[in-house]
Amino acid sequence: MAAFWSMGPLTLEVPMSLFAKNRQRLAEKLQDGQVVLLQGGEDISHYDTDIQYVFRQEAYFTWLCGVKEPGCYLALDVKTKKAHLFVPHLPDEYEVWMGKLLTCDQFKKIYAVDEVHYVEDIAKVLKSLNPEKLLTLSGPNTDSGLTAKEAVFEGIDEFTVDNEILFPTIAELRVIKTPEEIEVMRYVCKVSSDAHKQVMLYAKPGLKEYQCESVFLDHCYRVGGCRHVSYTCICGSGQNAATLHYGHAAAPNSKMIEDGDLCLFDMGGNYAGYAADITCTFPANGKFTEDQKLVYEAVLAARDAVVREAKPGVLWTDMHLTANRSMLQHLKDGGLLFGSVEDMIENGVGAILQPHGLGHLIGLDVHDVGGYLPHCPPRPSGPLARLRTARRLQAGMALTIEPGCYFIDKLLDRAQSNPSQARFFNWSRVASFRGCGGVRIEDDVLITEDGVENLTFVPRTVAEIEEHMSTGANFKSI
Amino acid sequence: MAAFWSMGPLTLEVPMSLFAKNRQRLAEKLQDGQVVLLQGGEDISHYDTDIQYVFRQEAYFTWLCGVKEPGCYLALDVKTKKAHLFVPHLPDEYEVWMGKLLTCDQFKKIYAVDEVHYVEDIAKVLKSLNPEKLLTLSGPNTDSGLTAKEAVFEGIDEFTVDNEILFPTIAELRVIKTPEEIEVMRYVCKVSSDAHKQVMLYAKPGLKEYQCESVFLDHCYRVGGCRHVSYTCICGSGQNAATLHYGHAAAPNSKMIEDGDLCLFDMGGNYAGYAADITCTFPANGKFTEDQKLVYEAVLAARDAVVREAKPGVLWTDMHLTANRSMLQHLKDGGLLFGSVEDMIENGVGAILQPHGLGHLIGLDVHDVGGYLPHCPPRPSGPLARLRTARRLQAGMALTIEPGCYFIDKLLDRAQSNPSQARFFNWSRVASFRGCGGVRIEDDVLITEDGVENLTFVPRTVAEIEEHMSTGANFKSI
Repeated sequence: MAAFWSMGPLTLEVPMSLFAKNRQRLAEKLQDGQVVLLQGGEDISHYDTDIQYVFRQEAYFTWLCGVKEPGCYLALDVKTKKAHLFVPHLPDEYEVWMGKLLTCDQFKKIYAVDEVHYVEDIAKVLKSLNPEKLLTLSGPNTDSGLTAKEAVFEGIDEFTVDNEILFPTIAELRVIKTPEEIEVMRYVCKVSSDAHKQVMLYAKPGLKEYQCESVFLDHCYRVGGCRHVSYTCICGSGQNAATLHYGHAAAPNSKMIEDGDLCLFDMGGNYAGYAADITCTFPANGKFTEDQKLVYEAVLAARDAVVREAKPGVLWTDMHLTANRSMLQHLKDGGLLFGSVEDMIENGVGAILQPHGLGHLIGLDVHDVGGYLPHCPPRPSGPLARLRTARRLQAGMALTIEPGCYFIDKLLDRAQSNPSQARFFNWSRVASFRGCGGVRIEDDVLITEDGVENLTFVPRTVAEIEEHMSTGANFKSI
Repeated sequence: MAAFWSMGPLTLEVPMSLFAKNRQRLAEKLQDGQVVLLQGGEDISHYDTDIQYVFRQEAYFTWLCGVKEPGCYLALDVKTKKAHLFVPHLPDEYEVWMGKLLTCDQFKKIYAVDEVHYVEDIAKVLKSLNPEKLLTLSGPNTDSGLTAKEAVFEGIDEFTVDNEILFPTIAELRVIKTPEEIEVMRYVCKVSSDAHKQVMLYAKPGLKEYQCESVFLDHCYRVGGCRHVSYTCICGSGQNAATLHYGHAAAPNSKMIEDGDLCLFDMGGNYAGYAADITCTFPANGKFTEDQKLVYEAVLAARDAVVREAKPGVLWTDMHLTANRSMLQHLKDGGLLFGSVEDMIENGVGAILQPHGLGHLIGLDVHDVGGYLPHCPPRPSGPLARLRTARRLQAGMALTIEPGCYFIDKLLDRAQSNPSQARFFNWSRVASFRGCGGVRIEDDVLITEDGVENLTFVPRTVAEIEEHMSTGANFKSI
């Protein structure tokens, strides 16, 4: 039987051929004589204690082989196309604590690689491959500013190492998802969509935000086998909906949800390393006010416009502006803004209400790599600088589409005191929106040959949300 | 109103006076002219990405001030008893992403400290205190072998720094819990006990182990406000119950629970930094077999003996032996072992069946500090070497009592081929236990003036467990 990884019956079987295909795609871009070497992640302790975070594998390493254990290396010999996995040689004694230790042969079967050796033999084995160049990974993550951790081992000095070729090549391959990867993304987005739907049934005034987070986590894990989420859950209600990265340790989703609050819940599961990243915004009491509806439908109009227009060849920066235009037009029609939408865009009004980009590449990282590779359009200046990519869309890209509209005092005050922006706002109406938080609608989509496949399945229109929430009495999590 | 931290209504309010008292206790052990300086934890990124683990504060820092934010320092001036908190000076722009930035005055109120400054002013402020010595923390964690991270800042060279005085002093203080700390431990143990009870109602053959883990996590968080557990949940069923640290990323609680399996679930919530660490073992189908009952009751006898005998003045090593004796006697009575129990102990039979120590100190770390401080009995050699402390019990200590009995092929095979051990086993009966996993019973207790207060409230006898599980049809998690 072909090797696969899953979390048991009723969860997705991720075939190891997914990773073999990634290796094949990579080998095709490289030259005989080159040997790729990636080092996987290591366990991380809580400070100086013997307690460790649940290990999560590094994303490039996952992409290349799907190996779940810490302390490994993978070498891909371009000439022979053979994958050599190196695993730690654990003391026999570990068996008592960690369970039956796998033999090299068992690792070989589990991960469907060509050869498995112990890490202690890495220099010897790599020498036997006689590489002209060892290709290691080094390059910037343009979202964090951090650098990928280059592989290193005792004896690497004896090899000719090139750390420039690999990064742009593998990052670019990660941008375009294979059909096998798309299957995993469909799964994790479906599980996460269902979890959001459960949360919408559960949520109500009087609960604390984190209770909704807990329902999400439980559904993802218990039903979908997702042990991890892809990022810290953002569960903002009321004013907290306007804090873009709410939910961190100093603001841990601990507010009581109140009647009249909008809930902006940005949460995504993670399966086999692949991320979902979905935001739902809904009224805690199940019924939108007219004002909430106005803002919600402005954001939904932006989402709809992008879903309609996104396709291969289109610039993501243009999609951002398309979203801004739709939203601003809708808010203007609703009496919140005055003047020409083009003038608003020109004067940065879009970024007052939506200070973040339209969306980002998604895959093994929630903010996936490849946004600003050397051959791609550089990061724009001005209001578009926040975009995590300015690329032209291609079939096989996976992205989030996540327009939003927030009432953030700091930004509104700034606009109000800036005549070139202030003139567009109906300030007396805006005043009544202050403190209400905001709206974000975030879908995970795949760019297809002629448009968009939406991987997200949650109630989106006002009518759909109100209808779904009206069945909340039927909620049961087990 | 007195400052406190909680996760909202119905969760425990942890008073900031708890930490003030810790500071006072510490100051009383030190001398005028000394200024304690601890550095709190920093955010940890997932590799080179912009995604971070949910921040969890370092335990010594928590003990001293309870501050939840990353990037802080705390100075305690022994002479004035004043606590100076240093917080990062974040750019205004962060407000959009992180929420309203707290002023120094707000931090002061929230954490009830005497003064709050920005980290950038640390050298200046510390100079103004004119310390003879700056006391920083450096010392070994005897469970991990790692060293506490010493505070460091630009300009520290201009101070006289002593990194030897603080560690044994503060670690010793952490060993003895104050009434305020005991309240928090009571709470987190109660929440974790209730979560275990939910899991016992939910568990049944046909589920995957991690589905039970998810129910535990959900109860701790949604009902008890515990966002974190204190360690990776160990949810071993059947043979996996004999893997002491099962549940890690390469063995992620993903087995299907089968009819006839014992479930050994070792899971503990975390509240305000304080840990619970509780193990329940029960039959997946709700009914013990005679063999399972024999092993279970042998372990329960060990637990009961320790609960009966533990009190101030008693050596923990003696408690370990007390537990071993009770268990071995019970197994002998059940026909699994032959010969004299004292001879068994002498020949290391206890460590074949229970390769771990009886239990450990618990508090802000699940394996809490202070087990082998310089003034304490050193780590024993031989079968007792696994013990995380060899101390004499004192009132105010919190510990786990966690005897276990496992059928681990590797250890049984070793005993079978060792004549000095083999003679004690009834190998034909032992053969029928191989593959069945094992039993652990783990309570969190407080040493009182005259004995033990058990902080754990779960069904423990065979009758209690079978009775509790028979009501499983009533399980609903919401």
